[in-house]
Amino acid sequence: MRILVFNAGSSSLKFGLYDIAGTETLRVKGGFDRFHDGSCDLKLTVDGAHHRLRAPHGDLAAAIAAVPGILAAQGIDGINAIGHRIAHGGALFDKPAVLDTSTLARVEQLTPLAPLHNPANLAGVALARQVWPDLPQVGVFDTSFHLSAPEFSTTYAVPQAWRDAGLRRFGFHGTSHKYVGLRAAEVIGQPLDRLQIVSCHLGNGASVCAINRGRSMDSSMGLTPLEGLVMGTRSGDVDPGAFGFLSRRLGLTIEEIESALYTDSGLKALTGSPDMRDAEDRAAQGDTAAQLAIEIYAYRARKYIGAYAAAMGGIDALVFTGGIGENSASMRRRICDGLEFMGVTLDIDRNQRVDLADRAAPELQSWGSRVRVIVTETQEQLQIARETATALAVMRPARLVLPVAVSARHVHLCQEHVEALFGPGATLTPEFPLRQPGNFAAHQKVTIEGPKGALHQVRILGPTRSRTQIEVSRTDTFALGVEAPVRLSGDLDATPKIRLKGPAGSIETDGLIIAARHIHMHPDDAERWGVADREEVEVRVTGTGRGMTFSGVIVRVQPTAFTEMHIDTDEANAAGISGGAEGALITAD
Amino acid sequence: MRILVFNAGSSSLKFGLYDIAGTETLRVKGGFDRFHDGSCDLKLTVDGAHHRLRAPHGDLAAAIAAVPGILAAQGIDGINAIGHRIAHGGALFDKPAVLDTSTLARVEQLTPLAPLHNPANLAGVALARQVWPDLPQVGVFDTSFHLSAPEFSTTYAVPQAWRDAGLRRFGFHGTSHKYVGLRAAEVIGQPLDRLQIVSCHLGNGASVCAINRGRSMDSSMGLTPLEGLVMGTRSGDVDPGAFGFLSRRLGLTIEEIESALYTDSGLKALTGSPDMRDAEDRAAQGDTAAQLAIEIYAYRARKYIGAYAAAMGGIDALVFTGGIGENSASMRRRICDGLEFMGVTLDIDRNQRVDLADRAAPELQSWGSRVRVIVTETQEQLQIARETATALAVMRPARLVLPVAVSARHVHLCQEHVEALFGPGATLTPEFPLRQPGNFAAHQKVTIEGPKGALHQVRILGPTRSRTQIEVSRTDTFALGVEAPVRLSGDLDATPKIRLKGPAGSIETDGLIIAARHIHMHPDDAERWGVADREEVEVRVTGTGRGMTFSGVIVRVQPTAFTEMHIDTDEANAAGISGGAEGALITAD
Repeated sequence: MRILVFNAGSSSLKFGLYDIAGTETLRVKGGFDRFHDGSCDLKLTVDGAHHRLRAPHGDLAAAIAAVPGILAAQGIDGINAIGHRIAHGGALFDKPAVLDTSTLARVEQLTPLAPLHNPANLAGVALARQVWPDLPQVGVFDTSFHLSAPEFSTTYAVPQAWRDAGLRRFGFHGTSHKYVGLRAAEVIGQPLDRLQIVSCHLGNGASVCAINRGRSMDSSMGLTPLEGLVMGTRSGDVDPGAFGFLSRRLGLTIEEIESALYTDSGLKALTGSPDMRDAEDRAAQGDTAAQLAIEIYAYRARKYIGAYAAAMGGIDALVFTGGIGENSASMRRRICDGLEFMGVTLDIDRNQRVDLADRAAPELQSWGSRVRVIVTETQEQLQIARETATALAVMRPARLVLPVAVSARHVHLCQEHVEALFGPGATLTPEFPLRQPGNFAAHQKVTIEGPKGALHQVRILGPTRSRTQIEVSRTDTFALGVEAPVRLSGDLDATPKIRLKGPAGSIETDGLIIAARHIHMHPDDAERWGVADREEVEVRVTGTGRGMTFSGVIVRVQPTAFTEMHIDTDEANAAGISGGAEGALITAD
Repeated sequence: MRILVFNAGSSSLKFGLYDIAGTETLRVKGGFDRFHDGSCDLKLTVDGAHHRLRAPHGDLAAAIAAVPGILAAQGIDGINAIGHRIAHGGALFDKPAVLDTSTLARVEQLTPLAPLHNPANLAGVALARQVWPDLPQVGVFDTSFHLSAPEFSTTYAVPQAWRDAGLRRFGFHGTSHKYVGLRAAEVIGQPLDRLQIVSCHLGNGASVCAINRGRSMDSSMGLTPLEGLVMGTRSGDVDPGAFGFLSRRLGLTIEEIESALYTDSGLKALTGSPDMRDAEDRAAQGDTAAQLAIEIYAYRARKYIGAYAAAMGGIDALVFTGGIGENSASMRRRICDGLEFMGVTLDIDRNQRVDLADRAAPELQSWGSRVRVIVTETQEQLQIARETATALAVMRPARLVLPVAVSARHVHLCQEHVEALFGPGATLTPEFPLRQPGNFAAHQKVTIEGPKGALHQVRILGPTRSRTQIEVSRTDTFALGVEAPVRLSGDLDATPKIRLKGPAGSIETDGLIIAARHIHMHPDDAERWGVADREEVEVRVTGTGRGMTFSGVIVRVQPTAFTEMHIDTDEANAAGISGGAEGALITAD
């Protein structure tokens, strides 16, 4: 597919043309900037060669209208679609959306959330629809990636009326964080959904993202792009008590304070210049204000990395991108120094010799560092092109029915634990068989004990496994008084410990999880329905009185599986399912 | 000394009477609460027995006036001084202060920083001065402990005019964090100034503190007690963009928003009750709002612990205190789960069986946990009594003159590194002797290489040591482009790595520090002047054109020392010292 990507700002326009089909090729990239008196600066990159000129385009409309000519001059035609970067997608847009008239109306309603950014993005869409009226226009939102973050990470502890009005954490730079997360996973050679990554996008705007097994779990920007790190002209985190203080002490209004936090704070407030290169030069010459600014910048970033490691239970990789992340060896060094305790050890020489040509993503950790440290250029336009192409891929023919079974809380034991709980030489006694071939409910039961309370008479499922696994519902975790992660069966690394009690003894073991909703699927069904192992699908359950669609249901293709979806008791209650039900599988793209 | 301690709030008064002399004994403790219609609730604890009654004291004045009678009834007289808890000491009060009329005037000027708390505290002082006109009244400030935090931790990235007006991070609960830090150090059996501790004060107000080798380095509350953790009725961290959003969306003013953030947010906003016990009970019964509140509370606390571990380069101990920290095994468990990556492993049983009677401070970590997890009751009144006693201890006779020497950047090498840099079998060649007996400047020099730049021809000091140490100034760290901690010589754990280049080779080694200002002191001088090894003193340097007083100068008593203070080139420049100077030692208390 040939995708044209636009990123329209209030006084600039960037574009890129990509061929996406197995390989990903950038054909032309350009930027219009500094519109003034009927002309602007134009930068073009064609076949790796850079050109700069003053061009006769005085505003955004003229710039977009000039793009067809620029592409034609390179012999490029046959564009399939246009992808637009849109800053804020609110809580609605968790993936790219084809921008038809009704969708555009919904995006326009989000303007109050991003009054500086969304209007310019939408002006670009409107102009592009005039120039290319027959092409699909797709919006790719900076916020979408972060909509996977759990509610405990996105909720401010503020009055309900404010939360009802839309006050919540969103996060931005999602396209960049997703791209560099994927790029890091490529370098590491493991799927993104097995990795715990902190991504640091350090540009003029800056944010840190906790990418937990492929999903954004947290990000340093919140409701707006003001929260979080120190930026070029933005403050990042500030005590909410500052507003009252500034109002009483200096007589300032909300508008005046907010405006200064956006445009006169950050590095600019601390050093006089929003540019980290200026700060670094001045600091080396002994400018103490610049020295302090650099220390604050690094310190705040380092704290976020520690916080997100704590959020995820440790990390596999730390990724740097954005102008400062890519180019300042010294800032990377400052941020990483002192993180040895969490397994981050930078190699001084590798950190110094970074070459990012040809989408390189060099590793900077020293030998033996538990955590990989990776630096790479962000490629938001490429990611937008990719997602635009995906959004337009045809739906697979699919609306397939499968049984839905409810799993009550239960325990799988290893043989060692069977004997510890039921006595030496004990084995599990089958009481009745389960639908998955070879599996059975055992006669034996155990008690699960937590710091707050206990769950008695919990069923053991057989046969024994190599590792003990305790599956409970989220409601159960509050009865027990512990937290448990939502995990696929068998995915037990870094799961919480819990005590099990049997008639012959008690044990303390890890392996406590809330089972992720999943489908056991026979390979024949997988082939017939066109889904792959570990693919996420949606399943719609109707006819139960509380019909609903489950998103993110993970397919497990297993040679002997009886095709069936498993949900837990909380999910069954939510959907009004008592014994069992049927669901319709809807494939994702 | 017999010290009476007051903590006066807007509608309550707590007091305690302590005998402080080697041992520390609480004689009487009490609290007046719910003033209404000429009476109030009175709780008294005498000899471990608790009494509750409705007493005929209708306001703060009546309550304070009643204290002499309560003490007399227990046969207590001979009070030496009164210590008052004062919430905000601004940037002025870095230690307790005797509250004479001029000092009180300075404290009153700080009211805009803590409009809810300071006026009540000061009303208590005024009333106590009327009842005990002849006793010294000492103010102990919640903020003092945090004034040791470095500028990069206390500075918001906001306009200079706002910072000039006083907008900076302070931190509160200082008395509590200091007490539990000291108590944890006692349990661990090491001095507080060798430990890296995160202290979690989780009460109705809540904050986390990074106690880095005895000093507060960072704390989750900032300018006001609004920032940081989720609290009973306070929001903790909120995007500064929320004010503009709420103004535009709901038409709210700064005053309305601030008031709601103080009194209608936090647990109260999330669950309807400010009490964590209510939230835990409701959550266990399936109340999803309460479940979410508990998750948010734990998640935010866990992130701060990770952030402060990153700030300090790992931690030795994690301490819980405050109502929730002391009593909720389940909350401690939620917060610690997932911190194994940084060496925190909770023992489930120990965490469950906590008994805090008799100032106990049980350890909750499992065997093999790298980090200690400790829980203890906070004793803010005891700490106020201690500090009141210290503030009143007589000044030691002291104003003693000693030479001040300036140390330029230099390197100490171990023998292995001498040979790596100068060739096999090389030894250091003395060029001239130094004033400290046995020490010399070597003929050999090295280059120090950092990510930003290099320092050439750096002097090596002999003799060789067991571990290589590189001492530079703060200015040098910016020329090199690395961060270095301020450390005492020899205190090299977890210091940054740096490259040294000699004629025969180069090495990469840790040991890069900015030397903490210190005094080498002969034992005879130490005895004569009444100072101990590792004690911190002040030294005043005059007659250089830029006279100044150096605080926190660490005394190193060494058998062969020539008594002399060492500062680095930055400090010398600041004080206008070129060759050398003389300083007058002022002991601290």
